Amino acid sequence: MIEDRLDRQLTFLTEIDALKSVIRQSHLADRSRRENAAEHSWHLGMFALVLGEADPTLDLAKVVAMLLIHDIVEIDAGDAPIHGAYDAVALAQAERAAAERIFGLLPETQRDRFLSLWREFEAEETMDARFAKALDRFQPLLLNILTGGGTWAENGVTEGQVYERYQPAIERGSPALWSRARALVRRHFAAARD
Amino acid sequence: MIEDRLDRQLTFLTEIDALKSVIRQSHLADRSRRENAAEHSWHLGMFALVLGEADPTLDLAKVVAMLLIHDIVEIDAGDAPIHGAYDAVALAQAERAAAERIFGLLPETQRDRFLSLWREFEAEETMDARFAKALDRFQPLLLNILTGGGTWAENGVTEGQVYERYQPAIERGSPALWSRARALVRRHFAAARD
Repeated sequence: MIEDRLDRQLTFLTEIDALKSVIRQSHLADRSRRENAAEHSWHLGMFALVLGEADPTLDLAKVVAMLLIHDIVEIDAGDAPIHGAYDAVALAQAERAAAERIFGLLPETQRDRFLSLWREFEAEETMDARFAKALDRFQPLLLNILTGGGTWAENGVTEGQVYERYQPAIERGSPALWSRARALVRRHFAAARD
Repeated sequence: MIEDRLDRQLTFLTEIDALKSVIRQSHLADRSRRENAAEHSWHLGMFALVLGEADPTLDLAKVVAMLLIHDIVEIDAGDAPIHGAYDAVALAQAERAAAERIFGLLPETQRDRFLSLWREFEAEETMDARFAKALDRFQPLLLNILTGGGTWAENGVTEGQVYERYQPAIERGSPALWSRARALVRRHFAAARD
């Protein structure tokens, strides 16, 4: 029974190695290549540890766990670029199926806990999930600023579109972070106009 | 004051993006390329969430945090391959200097907490640190098994050398995990002999 449990856990841990090969749109800060979803998830874990530490209303361990698992569904469903067109309903369905399959590799009690954590993140209703979502939106914004526009420059994204696509999630999860993000975005587009 | 705090935090979070470019010896499970230290750290966070969950003696949030930060010193000090020759004293010194510099980018109270967490991991005295170290040794062992020998095959490492180099840290942190690891290693080398 314990052996079987470990078998299932190692099967899951082996399967998720594939997240290292899911390529996102964001460029690394040094512009050497695009980021993959596994290292993005690590970076977000660090964002949570650093930026969430001072907030006693957060369950920081839960936020970190959410961020470590939040993109695992992309192993099956792929990464949907924020600036591209995609079928949101079909994507949500593919992600739900992916969550069932991949977390389903785990022992049942763990499968249920991970599924519940992933659904909490996706629902954006709890403060923990909203803070996690804010970081997931802020991190690529920061990488775009650091790389002279990054995916915004590549996709001809305007300053107004940046506010549309980033402000709701970041502001809802962390007004202070949005205040900083907005200042960074303004400065970036002002410099680009000069 | 709060603004200055956020400045320092964002400087740190930008600096550690470089961990995505620190290349380790381990191959990904699909053998497509070598692993980098950021995605390795994410993978270890997942190992901790999955394998550590059932152990009530662990502070799992602390173990996960330790694993997320444990390789950040490699941005300056580089990755020391387990099967290569290196000057352990010089490396330890370089890693301590790296920890001071990189965690020193953070606000002071956070710098102190991260430094303390990293030192706890390195000292391998607490159960949390020993469990974290066990995972840090077990994950590349698993990748080597999955890739038909991986860095063992590349470096002509014998079965006996595998026990020498992996058993102490894994067994000290998790006897159950070492029992499984030993079985995997035996089967791997037996198959290689056939």
